[in-house]
Amino acid sequence: MPELFNVLPPQAAKDLFCGRLSPLPGEERIPTWDALGRICRRDIFSPSNLPAFSRSTMDGYAVRARDTYGASEGIPAYLTVAGEAPMGRAPEFALASGQAALVHTGGMLPEGADAVVMVEQTQQAEAGTVEVLRPVAPGENVIQVGDDVKEGALLAPAGRWLRPQDIGGLVAVGITSLPVAPRPKVALIATGDELVGPGESLRLGQVRDINTYTISGLVQRAGGTPVSLGIVPDDREALRRTAQAGLDQADMVVISAGSSVSTRDMTAEVIASLGEPGVLVHGIAIRPGKPTILAIAQGKPVVGLPGNPVSAMVVFELLVTPALHKLAGCVDPPGRSRVEAYLARNIASIAGREDHVAVRLEQRNGATWAVPVFGESNLITTLMKADGTVVVPLDKLGLPEGEKVTVDLFGAG
Amino acid sequence: MPELFNVLPPQAAKDLFCGRLSPLPGEERIPTWDALGRICRRDIFSPSNLPAFSRSTMDGYAVRARDTYGASEGIPAYLTVAGEAPMGRAPEFALASGQAALVHTGGMLPEGADAVVMVEQTQQAEAGTVEVLRPVAPGENVIQVGDDVKEGALLAPAGRWLRPQDIGGLVAVGITSLPVAPRPKVALIATGDELVGPGESLRLGQVRDINTYTISGLVQRAGGTPVSLGIVPDDREALRRTAQAGLDQADMVVISAGSSVSTRDMTAEVIASLGEPGVLVHGIAIRPGKPTILAIAQGKPVVGLPGNPVSAMVVFELLVTPALHKLAGCVDPPGRSRVEAYLARNIASIAGREDHVAVRLEQRNGATWAVPVFGESNLITTLMKADGTVVVPLDKLGLPEGEKVTVDLFGAG
Repeated sequence: MPELFNVLPPQAAKDLFCGRLSPLPGEERIPTWDALGRICRRDIFSPSNLPAFSRSTMDGYAVRARDTYGASEGIPAYLTVAGEAPMGRAPEFALASGQAALVHTGGMLPEGADAVVMVEQTQQAEAGTVEVLRPVAPGENVIQVGDDVKEGALLAPAGRWLRPQDIGGLVAVGITSLPVAPRPKVALIATGDELVGPGESLRLGQVRDINTYTISGLVQRAGGTPVSLGIVPDDREALRRTAQAGLDQADMVVISAGSSVSTRDMTAEVIASLGEPGVLVHGIAIRPGKPTILAIAQGKPVVGLPGNPVSAMVVFELLVTPALHKLAGCVDPPGRSRVEAYLARNIASIAGREDHVAVRLEQRNGATWAVPVFGESNLITTLMKADGTVVVPLDKLGLPEGEKVTVDLFGAG
Repeated sequence: MPELFNVLPPQAAKDLFCGRLSPLPGEERIPTWDALGRICRRDIFSPSNLPAFSRSTMDGYAVRARDTYGASEGIPAYLTVAGEAPMGRAPEFALASGQAALVHTGGMLPEGADAVVMVEQTQQAEAGTVEVLRPVAPGENVIQVGDDVKEGALLAPAGRWLRPQDIGGLVAVGITSLPVAPRPKVALIATGDELVGPGESLRLGQVRDINTYTISGLVQRAGGTPVSLGIVPDDREALRRTAQAGLDQADMVVISAGSSVSTRDMTAEVIASLGEPGVLVHGIAIRPGKPTILAIAQGKPVVGLPGNPVSAMVVFELLVTPALHKLAGCVDPPGRSRVEAYLARNIASIAGREDHVAVRLEQRNGATWAVPVFGESNLITTLMKADGTVVVPLDKLGLPEGEKVTVDLFGAG
C-alpha cells in the first residue's frame, strides 16, 4: 500500500488550483458601516469633492496672503478683524484687502481669504485689529476643495478588503451603502469511523472531531461562511452523497479526509467521481500536509484535507485561504503577520519538501527567538503552544540554530 | 490660546492609563465553537486524557516491539497476523508473543502491542503471516494515552485570546462550552457643530462624521462592542449629558473631540467634570495625535481623541486598543503585523516626539520598500492609500532614505 501519487511543490499546487477559480457571481448591497472585512464588489468613485469647501487646518486668522508679505515680529502686518468664521456654516461675510477673520481648525474660509495664519504667529492689538508676525503663502494652513478626494476619483477599487479607514473614507463622501462580494459558503465534511462530535461521550477507540472546528475558524478568518455537514463514516456512498449535498448548497467543499491510507484513497475516489475536471492535485511536497487533494467538480472547488488537525490547518492557510480570497474577488487580502526571529534549535528537513514547523516566540536579551514546538506527532496542543510557523524551503536540508528566520504568525482568529 | 498642557511620551501615557484599569467583572458562558476571538475568562483544565487510548500514527502492523529486535531485510521477523484493529472501536483481541495486528492511522492498538511497524517496512508473506524488515522500539509510531493532553493539565489559561487551534483543542477533550470575558462596550461620541451624519446632505461648512465609523471598526477589531451615541454639538451641557449616558451604559467612553482648541478645551473640561480621579493625561508626545485626553471617571476609562481621523486612528491603536484588552483581561493579544522594509524617502521629525508616518509598501527588485504617503494634512485618504505606519522614535530627529525600518501594518479589520 505505498503512496503512489506524485507530489507537487506547494506554490505550483496553489497556482494550478487558484488559477482555475473565478470570483463568485452576484453581490450584496449593505450599509457601509457593516462592510468591515467585506470585499468591495465594484470600483467605487467619489460622488463629490472632499472637502467640499476650503477648510482651515489651524486655529488662527484667515487672511489674503499678500497682506502678510514682509510681516515680522519687528514690523507686524496690522489687519482689521472682519468677524469670526462659524463652524458648520459658510461665513456670511467676505474678506476685503487688509482684513482678517478668526477661524477655527476645520472651519470654512470666508470668500476672499486664501491662507491662514496660526494663532501663535499673531498678537492681539487694539480691539478689532490683529498683528500678524509672519508672512504666509497662498494656500498655507488650508485644505483646498477636493484635496482629500476629487469628485469622480476612484475611492475604493473592486476587490478591496475593506478596513476601518476605507469605511471612514466612504462615509466621508456620503456613500452609505455599497455592493460587496458574497461571502463564499464552505461546506465542511469530516470522515472517519472513529470520529464523534464534541458533546458525545467517547468509547475506547473513538476520538472527537477537531477539524470541523479549527477549519470553521479559518474559513471565517478568510472571509467565508462555514456550513458543517457533520461526520460521515468511512462509507463511499455516504461520503459521495454528503459531498454532493455540499456542492448543491455551498461554493466550496472541504473534506477532512481521515488519516489512514484506505480512507484517503476512498476520499480521493469520491472526489474524482463528482465530475470534471476532477482531481488537479493529489499530494503536495509539504510536511505536514502531504496527502492533500485539490479538485474542481461541477464548477466548484473541492478540497481533501489531511485528517491530522495540524496538517489540515497548515494546508488550509497555505492553499485554501487564497482560494477563498479568489472566490470573493479579493485582490489585496491581508497578509499573514510575520516577525523575524533567531532559530533556537536546528530543524532537519529533506530536499524537495517544504517543512512548516510550529514555533513559539521567546524574548532573550532583547532579541526574539523562535523555539520549535516538537511533539511525538502533530498534536493539536502543538499548535496551542505555538505562536506561528517557520518554513524550511523546498531546496534546503534544514535550518541551523541561530539562523535568522521569518515566523508566520497565527492570526487573531 | 497656546496649548499649555504638558505632554507625556506615548509609552508612559499608556502605562499610566492601562495601569489604572482592571478586567471587567462577570463572564458569559458560550458554546466553544462560538468562542473564536473571545477571551478565556478562567483557566480551563482538561477533564480527560487526549488521546484516551494508545493510537497508531501510521498505517502498518501493531506488534510487541521485542518480537522485531534483530529483524532486517535479510532476516525478517515472521509474525502471525492475529486480526485487524477496527477504527472507532477497541480491538476484541489481545496480541500474544509472535503476533501482529493490521492497524490504521489513528486506530487503537490491541492489548499487548506496544509499537507499530510502518506498512512500508513489512512484506506480505504467506496468508496469515507478515514479514517485518526492521526492528521498532517500544512506543515507536504510537501516541500514548495523554501524549497530547494529560487529564487535569492546563489547556487554555485565563486571558487567552482564543484562536482556531484553541477551539480545536477544547472540543477535542469534550469541552463544549466555556466562560469568556464580556466584550467591553464602548460608547462613541462625536462632537463638533460642523459634523453631520453620513446620510445627510451637506451645507457649505459642514463635514460628515468619519470617526464614529473608523473607531467602530477598531473597537470591533480589539474585541469590543461599539455603541454610537451620535453627534453632539459644541455645547458643554449637551456633551456632559451624553458622556454621562455613555458612562451609564458602556464600559468605556470615547469622545472624538473636534479639532479646534476651544472644542478640545471644552471636551477636557467636560471629561474633568465627570468624576475622580479625572484626567490622567492631557497631551501626548506623538504626531499625529498630540491633543489626546486619557481619564478615569466613575471607575471607567474616558478617552478624548483628536478630531482628525488619522490622529484618532493612530492614537486609538496605540493607547485605546491595549486598554480594551486590559478590560477584557486579555494577556496575549494578537500583535500588530509587522514587516521590515527599506525607507524610500527621508522622514523629518523632532527630538522628544514620536512620529507615526503612513506608508505604502512597494516591491522593487525583490526588496520591500516603505513609501511615505504624505498629504497636505492628515487626510482620511492618506490612510486608504497606506498599508501601515513607520515610527520615528522619540529620540530621533528623523529617518534617512534607505534605512531599514519596521512597518506596523494596518490589520485586516
